[in-house]
This record gives sequence, structure tokens and C-alpha cells, in this order.
Amino acid sequence: MRIVVLAGGIGGARFLRGLKQAVGPLARAEEAQITVIGNTGDDIHLFGLKVCPDLDTVMYTLGGGIHEEQGWGRTDESFSIKAEMKEYGVGPEWFGLGDKDFATHIVRTQMLGAGYPLSAVTEALCARWQPGVRLIPMSDDRVETHVLTDIDGERKAVHFQEYWVKLHAAVPAHAIIPVGAEQAKPAPGVLEAIAEADVIILPPSNPVVSVGTILAVPGIRRAVAQAAAPVIGLSPIIGGAPVRGMADKVLAAVGVETSAAAVAKHYGSARGTGLLDGWLVDTSDAAAVAEVEAAGIPCRAVPLWMTDVAASAEMAREALAFAEAVRA
Amino acid sequence: MRIVVLAGGIGGARFLRGLKQAVGPLARAEEAQITVIGNTGDDIHLFGLKVCPDLDTVMYTLGGGIHEEQGWGRTDESFSIKAEMKEYGVGPEWFGLGDKDFATHIVRTQMLGAGYPLSAVTEALCARWQPGVRLIPMSDDRVETHVLTDIDGERKAVHFQEYWVKLHAAVPAHAIIPVGAEQAKPAPGVLEAIAEADVIILPPSNPVVSVGTILAVPGIRRAVAQAAAPVIGLSPIIGGAPVRGMADKVLAAVGVETSAAAVAKHYGSARGTGLLDGWLVDTSDAAAVAEVEAAGIPCRAVPLWMTDVAASAEMAREALAFAEAVRA
Repeated sequence: MRIVVLAGGIGGARFLRGLKQAVGPLARAEEAQITVIGNTGDDIHLFGLKVCPDLDTVMYTLGGGIHEEQGWGRTDESFSIKAEMKEYGVGPEWFGLGDKDFATHIVRTQMLGAGYPLSAVTEALCARWQPGVRLIPMSDDRVETHVLTDIDGERKAVHFQEYWVKLHAAVPAHAIIPVGAEQAKPAPGVLEAIAEADVIILPPSNPVVSVGTILAVPGIRRAVAQAAAPVIGLSPIIGGAPVRGMADKVLAAVGVETSAAAVAKHYGSARGTGLLDGWLVDTSDAAAVAEVEAAGIPCRAVPLWMTDVAASAEMAREALAFAEAVRA
Repeated sequence: MRIVVLAGGIGGARFLRGLKQAVGPLARAEEAQITVIGNTGDDIHLFGLKVCPDLDTVMYTLGGGIHEEQGWGRTDESFSIKAEMKEYGVGPEWFGLGDKDFATHIVRTQMLGAGYPLSAVTEALCARWQPGVRLIPMSDDRVETHVLTDIDGERKAVHFQEYWVKLHAAVPAHAIIPVGAEQAKPAPGVLEAIAEADVIILPPSNPVVSVGTILAVPGIRRAVAQAAAPVIGLSPIIGGAPVRGMADKVLAAVGVETSAAAVAKHYGSARGTGLLDGWLVDTSDAAAVAEVEAAGIPCRAVPLWMTDVAASAEMAREALAFAEAVRA
């Protein structure tokens, strides 16, 4: 079974850990292959280094190096370099990179500087982490999500990380602009993986700045829409609020209500011009099932809180079972 | 009083700390200015970062951040990144960079990448360290000292750091090649500082791979030879052996005996085509004074062991007094 997942950072990574457990016995027998197409719109150059927060969160989470409570960055981390940067007066201070994390960015930057594309670099980094999935960046080309916002009364586009991490999404987002996406090409293997997939999953990642950015790379949305495999999504919204993060802010920017049903309709039905063959909402949003199905999207209500790996694995099993059901 | 010092790493840095103490009251009144022309032939690109061991040793030593016992690198250092690099399988392992030290190289590399020349970057780094001297790299152009040696029976040129740090200078050095030196230009301010100096000092740095490399940058040797200021050197050789390091190995490569007198004659007399107006040997080498003077170089025997800052300061005072004497 070939499974393709379009993933952002924390939500995607935690779902993937569950998915791995769910297909575990299969995976070990190489009968299941998970290909993760990772969002790189969050990527940022800091201190002259290329930082790929979402790819790293997936890699560290699946490879056993993640800071569990935080959800990003390395466990048992130290911050010598950050302190030194402050002494040198070199910013930004708001992006907290630990020493171990710096090592990843140094290796990545060195390889990129030597001419390797990001997909090859990611593969090389994964040779250490052994995430148990094939992790491919959505594109080897630079795509950088910017947010049009108001700062000190002036309309201004800032890097997504500045909006998210520095400003805590506490200023209005008028538009989300994946700069460079129009010129970007899917990384080698992305379109092939989608075309050959048995199941395509949109995990509970941010539908705008994570999955939305991946779909903004020309060719990827069409490939997902045209894929033979059923496309199953899991709602990142439970009870009218994001499970984690500030998805409500960026949903508002694209005119989508913060509800499980609205996000489903934002992705759209595969029977129409959309993507979804199935949508999972949390049991607490069971009332939304009818609304989603009325939009032509088969829908089920199951527990969607990723409280631990077992809960995430159960969600993954529900998604795979749903895929089987809609396929039949 | 304007003092110019051509410095390598540990020996030069320790002498400079003594010199600062010796001219301290003057320096505070801005009546003494110390300009250090630093060797950059030891520079190396590691992990995609520009590392300048000699400049950093001077900067850290004079700025209070040096690892005292070791003589290079930072005090209270951690090695997270080094451990990570090993996990990633990224070498070399033989060059031990600590986390704090990495920060310096990251800042430097970022500034160089932004287009600043090394001299401007060094000035910016020194804004933090406040070394109390003006530290200028010998050149903004890349010069890289290579050593022609035998490895596994084959004649091969390796980077100086590989010869020094990895191979511990334990293989024969047939030649020392400052790659790029012929095309290099002195950094802004270097020739001016030499021309305007009241005293020029060759500290007990390595005469071949430190001072020799600086002098190999076209224009610098001539500027020192033609300078109005007396040129005073301090022997890095005591009792037929280097005070520290492996200078004997590289002296052999250029056909110079490892003795205080031979190094003096290698630099040569300012009365002839050489540089020296005065040469200080250690008291234990007093027998060499006559030989040095016979070569046209005024010579004195004074204690040259830099056992502590006070001893280094006394050496600096001897050098300055000697300069006064030869000037008169």
C-alpha cells in the first residue's frame, strides 16, 4: 500500500507517527510505503543558513529527536549559539534555534551551497534520522510564504515566520502569499508518488499555510485531483478552533470560516472541482457531517485529538478504513 | 606611539596581551595605538563556514574569551554541534569547533555572504570583543597555506590545518605554499599602518606559516623593509626548539635551522635586504647574540618565556626599549 501524505509541521508530524504505527507491521515488510510531501513555504534564511521548520519537524518527530512538549526543535537542546548571537548583536532574536538544530541547518546549507537540490539534501539528512517514510520537499525551488498584515498602521508583507513566531499571529492577516510558488516546480518524485498512490491523506495540518502552500505549487493540486487514489482529509479544526496553532487567523485571510465543515468545503469535493473523497471530523463536530456530505464529501465523525501516539494511530486507521470504504 | 605587530595565533596573541599591559596607561590615553596585521593563511572553510583561527585567537585572547590552557577556542565551551556532525557523518572530525566558536564563524560567513570584505567583518566582530587593538587581516583576498608532504608514500599538498591539526606535523614538510598569496592585495589600512608606524614588532609567532605568510602578500614585505620605524623581532625559538607548536617542521621545509640565530638571519638585517633592526633572543641563547650581530642585526638576550601576562609585558617593554635604542 502506497500512502501519500501532504504534511506541514507539528500536526502533520504527529499524525505521521500514528500512521507509521497503524501500518507498522506492513511497513516493516515493505508492503506499505509512506511518502510525505513536505511544506517548504515556512522555510527561512536565518544567520545565512537555510532553515526548513516543517521538514525538520517531520524528520525529528519520526526519527526520535523531537522536543516532545514543544513539538518542534530538538530534545535536550542547548542554546549557546543563540546567546552568542545576542552578544554579537545579530538577530533575529525571536526565532529560537538550539545548538543541535543549528547543526542540521549548517549541514543543509553546506550541501545546498555545494549544489545539491533540497530534495537530495533532505534525503541525506534522513539517512541519519531514518524517519521510516520517504520525505520529499514539495519543491526544490524557493517558495516563501508571506503574510500581508498591518504593522504600526502600515500595510506590509512579512515572512510567515515573522507573522507566526514574532507577531504570534496577533495582527490581522489580509492575504497569504506563497512568494515564488507560481514559478516553482514539484520536486522530483512528488507527482509520481501522487499518481501511484493507493491513498492520499491530508492530515490535520494547517489548510492554508501548510497543505495550501503545497497545493499552490503548479501541478500538485491537479495531480491530487486526478489521482486514482481516494483523498481523505482530517479536520485540523475541532469545535470551531484550531487543535493547535493559529489556523483561524490564516483561514480568515482566505475567507474561510474556522469550522470543520468550512475547511472541508475549502478543499472541495472530488466529485466536483475539489479534492476530497472523504473528510473526518471530530466526534464533537458530528453535527457538521450532514453539512459536509451535502457538499458532496463523504464524512465521518471520529475522535481527532492526537493526545498520544495510540490516538493518532487510531485516527490513521480510521482514515485508511474510510479510504477503503469510499474506494469500494 | 603607533605600534604595528604582524601576528599569527597563540604566540602572537599572548605577546599582544603583554604589549597591551606594557603600553596600558598610554593606550588608555589614546597615545599608543596598536595595529595588528593578522595572518589569514590558516583560514579554512569547514562545514561551509569561513574559519579564521589566527584572527579569532587574537580576538578571543585580547577580548577575554579565550580558552586559557588550550590557547585557542572559547572558554566554557560546549560541543553539541560537533557531536551532531558526527551523527550526520559530516567531517572533518579532526578540527574541533565548539558551539560558541561556531557562532563566530556563522556571523562571519553571513557577513561575507552579504558582500562585506573580511576586514570589515573582523572590525564588526571586534566591536563585540573590544580587543583594545585594531585588528586587520593581512588581506581581504583568500590565501590558503598548503603544505607539500608525503601521505601513504605519495607526494601531496594538504591544507595547513590538515598538516598541523590532523597530521600533527608528524610527516615531512617539503614546501610551504601560500596559495593565492601572489594575487592577494593587502587589506585596506595595512600598508598605511606600516608606513606610519613608530615601531614594528615581529612577535614570537611562527616565522614561516604566520609572519612568513603575512610577508608573502605582495607589498607587505617591502612596506616593512622601507618603513621609517625600527623593526624588532622576538625569537620564537628558545634553546633550539619552538616555544610552542611545531615551527621546527616548517622551518626545515624552508631550509632554516631551528635556532634563534637562524630565524634572525632568515628575516635578515634591515641594513641589507632584510627586515630586522633588532632581534631579541632568550637569555639561554645569549651565546647566539654574537652570531646574530655578525649578520648585521643588533641583538639582545632577555627572558622570552611568556609564562604569564607580566612576563609577556616585560618582553614587550624590552622590545619597545630596544626600538628606542636602535632608533637613537
